[in-house]
Amino acid sequence: MTICLIGAGNLATQLGMALAEKGHDFSQVYSRTISSAKILADALCCESVIRPEQLRSDADIYICALKDDALQEVLPRIKFGKGLLVHTAGSLAMDVLAEFTSNYGVFYPLQTFSKQRKVDFSDVPIFIEAVNSASMERLRVLASTLSLKVVSANSLQRKQLHLSAVFACNFVNYLYNIADDLVKEQGLDFKYLLPLIEETARKVHELSPAQAQTGPAVRFDRAVMDKHLELLEDHPDLKMLYDTLSEGIHKRAQIKLTNTD
Amino acid sequence: MTICLIGAGNLATQLGMALAEKGHDFSQVYSRTISSAKILADALCCESVIRPEQLRSDADIYICALKDDALQEVLPRIKFGKGLLVHTAGSLAMDVLAEFTSNYGVFYPLQTFSKQRKVDFSDVPIFIEAVNSASMERLRVLASTLSLKVVSANSLQRKQLHLSAVFACNFVNYLYNIADDLVKEQGLDFKYLLPLIEETARKVHELSPAQAQTGPAVRFDRAVMDKHLELLEDHPDLKMLYDTLSEGIHKRAQIKLTNTD
Repeated sequence: MTICLIGAGNLATQLGMALAEKGHDFSQVYSRTISSAKILADALCCESVIRPEQLRSDADIYICALKDDALQEVLPRIKFGKGLLVHTAGSLAMDVLAEFTSNYGVFYPLQTFSKQRKVDFSDVPIFIEAVNSASMERLRVLASTLSLKVVSANSLQRKQLHLSAVFACNFVNYLYNIADDLVKEQGLDFKYLLPLIEETARKVHELSPAQAQTGPAVRFDRAVMDKHLELLEDHPDLKMLYDTLSEGIHKRAQIKLTNTD
Repeated sequence: MTICLIGAGNLATQLGMALAEKGHDFSQVYSRTISSAKILADALCCESVIRPEQLRSDADIYICALKDDALQEVLPRIKFGKGLLVHTAGSLAMDVLAEFTSNYGVFYPLQTFSKQRKVDFSDVPIFIEAVNSASMERLRVLASTLSLKVVSANSLQRKQLHLSAVFACNFVNYLYNIADDLVKEQGLDFKYLLPLIEETARKVHELSPAQAQTGPAVRFDRAVMDKHLELLEDHPDLKMLYDTLSEGIHKRAQIKLTNTD
């Protein structure tokens, strides 16, 4: 089974390297940026191309890991032959691929990828979907070489996972960023917050997030919250965010109480 | 050195147990709830009391781990003798203790505490402050038996740490809660998000949160964001939160770009 990789960004790089480590063969890597294409192709011991038309039609699987909007520019210029074409995007329905070939699917690893950090795929859930059962099986086999958690999910489920990931990862990281700014204002180092950040993440392995919720907003402790808002006097946007999140927490705590009574 | 513990909640329990493990002696535990007082006092091999007046004045250190508003009710009823009185609250200035005794300070471990989960204190930063250098030294020695990170911090710094912790822990957990609700709506399990949550927390050990930021909001990818907002159609409060957080992320990414140019 030979794999053709369309894209050479964070996800393409991490995924390509992980698949190569498991012994999979690559035919070609496409990226419009010649250096990205070359670096990844060299690592995968295959050819690099910078025009979609240069991709051959004899690969068994085409993994498209482009940004969502680049997909419509690049894919029409490729001849897919009998190979299985998959995209890797949480936010795109499987059917966006229907116009390019009849054999298509989705291969969506739910994780945050940076070029700098190597990701251990064994723990990463991979959500798969395909237009026919033979391709579904092929994806299951491929995904299982990387991960212990291979799950079939339809397009709506995947979109919701992607949305949830924005809350649990992107938005969470933004809150880390705010905390970083705040401690620095007082000449303190962000590293002091790391054990707290770790424990907060670890806690929800054992307790549900609803059970794990702590802090002044749960009991709507106005005295503490007002002190916090005073400290945010010079940050009107953060004051607003503080209020919105605190009200959200309190509302949920109330619902929980009502359900328990 | 004998320790008197005022309070038997999450923090008092975890802190008491950790100090006992390190060989410290306890004289008494106070809680107005008889069962809480008794359970913790038994674990610490000391006496339990349910009225503040029953506390003896010969302890070396009084650690007050009450809720902020209970402090003013309980402390006026205690005779402190020569012992050092400390509170454990991030949000309270040291001076709130001035009316109760002349020898006081603060012992603030920056972590989230639940009764159910045992916390490893060796990694928890403990911020100390005291009204005189002898008490400061005593707190440093006591804290050092628990943690490798003992840091002196004034009341303003501590308040800012507490505020930052609300963002990095309480608010983060609330976002986990939202993500939990969202995946459940599509019949999926929250556990699929755990590797992502872990990696997001781990990433900021190596990269700054600003460097680690990913997701559609960084590049203000309207197409993806609009799809997310569509999925939130039935949750007007989450739509608003999504917009607020996305705009915050984008604004910071812009500032970063401008600074780099």
